[in-house]
Amino acid sequence: MSSAFNPAPADRVVGHEDSIWMEFTKLAQTHQAVNLGQGFPDSPAPKFITDILKDISAKPDLTAAHQYTRGYGHPELTNILSKMYSHLYNVNVSPMNDVLITVGAYHALYYAFLGWINPGDEVIIIEPAFDCYSPQVKFAGGIPVPISMTVPEDAFSASQFTIDFKNLEAKISDKTKMLVINNPHNPTGKLFTRQELEKLAEIAEKHNLIVIADEVYEFHVWKKEDMIRFASLRGMYNRTISIGSAGKAFSITGWKLGWAIGPQNLLAPLKAIHQNCVFTCSSPTQLAIAEAFKIDWPKFLKKPKESYLATGLSGELIQKSNKLAHMLAKGGFRPIAPQAGYFMLANYSNHNHNIDMSQETDPADFVFARWLCSEKKLAVIPFSAFYSIQTEKMKNCNFIRLCYFKKDATLTDAKKILKKLGKE
Amino acid sequence: MSSAFNPAPADRVVGHEDSIWMEFTKLAQTHQAVNLGQGFPDSPAPKFITDILKDISAKPDLTAAHQYTRGYGHPELTNILSKMYSHLYNVNVSPMNDVLITVGAYHALYYAFLGWINPGDEVIIIEPAFDCYSPQVKFAGGIPVPISMTVPEDAFSASQFTIDFKNLEAKISDKTKMLVINNPHNPTGKLFTRQELEKLAEIAEKHNLIVIADEVYEFHVWKKEDMIRFASLRGMYNRTISIGSAGKAFSITGWKLGWAIGPQNLLAPLKAIHQNCVFTCSSPTQLAIAEAFKIDWPKFLKKPKESYLATGLSGELIQKSNKLAHMLAKGGFRPIAPQAGYFMLANYSNHNHNIDMSQETDPADFVFARWLCSEKKLAVIPFSAFYSIQTEKMKNCNFIRLCYFKKDATLTDAKKILKKLGKE
Repeated sequence: MSSAFNPAPADRVVGHEDSIWMEFTKLAQTHQAVNLGQGFPDSPAPKFITDILKDISAKPDLTAAHQYTRGYGHPELTNILSKMYSHLYNVNVSPMNDVLITVGAYHALYYAFLGWINPGDEVIIIEPAFDCYSPQVKFAGGIPVPISMTVPEDAFSASQFTIDFKNLEAKISDKTKMLVINNPHNPTGKLFTRQELEKLAEIAEKHNLIVIADEVYEFHVWKKEDMIRFASLRGMYNRTISIGSAGKAFSITGWKLGWAIGPQNLLAPLKAIHQNCVFTCSSPTQLAIAEAFKIDWPKFLKKPKESYLATGLSGELIQKSNKLAHMLAKGGFRPIAPQAGYFMLANYSNHNHNIDMSQETDPADFVFARWLCSEKKLAVIPFSAFYSIQTEKMKNCNFIRLCYFKKDATLTDAKKILKKLGKE
Repeated sequence: MSSAFNPAPADRVVGHEDSIWMEFTKLAQTHQAVNLGQGFPDSPAPKFITDILKDISAKPDLTAAHQYTRGYGHPELTNILSKMYSHLYNVNVSPMNDVLITVGAYHALYYAFLGWINPGDEVIIIEPAFDCYSPQVKFAGGIPVPISMTVPEDAFSASQFTIDFKNLEAKISDKTKMLVINNPHNPTGKLFTRQELEKLAEIAEKHNLIVIADEVYEFHVWKKEDMIRFASLRGMYNRTISIGSAGKAFSITGWKLGWAIGPQNLLAPLKAIHQNCVFTCSSPTQLAIAEAFKIDWPKFLKKPKESYLATGLSGELIQKSNKLAHMLAKGGFRPIAPQAGYFMLANYSNHNHNIDMSQETDPADFVFARWLCSEKKLAVIPFSAFYSIQTEKMKNCNFIRLCYFKKDATLTDAKKILKKLGKE
């Protein structure tokens, strides 16, 4: 009888589409492919991090680790984050007011859009862009306004992705409320220069915009001095919601902890939603991450060679990114060298003959990525997935995105596939 | 310059109020009170649970524990939950389609309301009610429609809270979309009978309502056979979103893991929001909870005396609830004996002379709870906080809610305070 029960969902979820990750994660599983698609390390997690969680788990009587903690963040974690970011931004970040702990950076982004965007409000998104911004803005009723970075056809460095600032400013209307900056940039691997960021700051100030600074790869730079945090620019702290990630910082993406940092008035709407949404985040992992920062932060400042965040992480990333670039070149691809992060783009046009576009309506890179996964057992992400507007140019896109933060065995498996492909 | 930056938040957060927990948690801290307010155990977490997390943390190379897992739930966890609930509901609960893992039951409730409620839709809430339902419904644009349970003045058992079904049905309009049932019931400690639940099922069917069955205290019953899960009633699985909690089941509220269970079409809108909100939940705790259920569930079925969920938990709860009831009686309160859960109500009218209501606009129980906390260092929650409509009767409410799932030292501290109070 009740099998006929088929009520209509709330309007806000109508038209929802599965994200790119659904298709390509499933495809990789189906074909048991070597997975350079999704952005997480498959190497062992840093032992000093998992050891902290082990020690916490050895104490069942530690109420602060196993029972509800403070809603806006475990005091141990908000305290150390306030110390760190007070230094990094050169402002006074209040541990009780200016920090909100979330279920990963993704969750902080969701709060930021839902807390500030009304139906019809416009949000400037610099593309290519991490593929959650646009659906999240739309979920809040907002209008994503994409602007494309320019890049030369024969680009070899992620630094060659640049913003046409005149074009950006031309897209700003009286409906524009927010600008999203992702630095270091996913998927290109670009690290924005001070000059570029100051130009964005000038525009944000001129048009009175809120800035979302998604800086989840802030510790994934080749030299720590090269990372310019947006909230550290003169006057910018007051208009910026900075977003960070413990999962990215300590290479334990599955722990799902992140944060939003900003002045109290900018965080207030995020906190209001938090109180309805999850109320508080996981205590044991918050406490463990607090301990990890308390250990690593003094080293970051004074003994960078012993610090995971200052050199341990980047050492691994540089080595792995070089390795993948070489492998790709041998395989007939043209890699674009990243300046930071987990990811590398590569041009695959030498392999265009492998795919038949005559019957296809999807962009070329989707067709190529599916072919590479199903036929060659190598999973990657098509570059055009990071664009909301599928122009004719994007339809003929010849780029894929690869994650190089993978264990040596995975990279060696990929090497074999690429080597064979290069010889075909 | 930027200090003047003061943009307007999204309309959806305007009018947001801090929850009751903010005031009373802070008050308890300020006065360093013995805390029988918030509902979490302060006893050590069960060692067999924390040991599982310890073992997982000892394996940094376990990618399934430390990196992103499946968005809708770690396969290990959805698999064991599907086994359990297929048995408990006597239906086939698909692990891949009918289970969504969330950041606590609170988060599942948020999804359920946001996924199904459009502006103007009405939701029937049986009061007293856990204080998040109403704000969450309002956040979705819905209208909470409260109906009050009746209870005799001199009640001594939570079973004496009853629903006037005619009154309930009279509140149903063509805007009514949903009915929320909380069983075992917080804050009263009532366990609904099969007869009561079947009456609610009849109403749900007649008026074609979605039912939210918040059953987070499902294992906190004195005898496991006494718990009637709503989705197990004939025909009800297809119209019910059942909500459960690992934090409650295993007394580790800080791990913040819960779930929504229901047919695929009822979960689809929740999953759509999940994909925008957090995308996936914490891997290490999901894996640990999966292992915990895999250990305890066969015992629950076949060796209940060895099962934490069948007898371990209830054994502790019965003993502690008896203890608190005695203490309250000695202190001049009239406790209402619970049938399940963490909580007990108590009438404090013998202590009315301690508070002066002549200058007060807040309900009497708020004034009393503040007095008890600040003057006697015992933190409890005023009962009227669980009613959305503050009637004149509620203003003169003489009840408080106490959590008895506390370690012996805490209960002994409370005992001293209550004993002294009884002698005054």
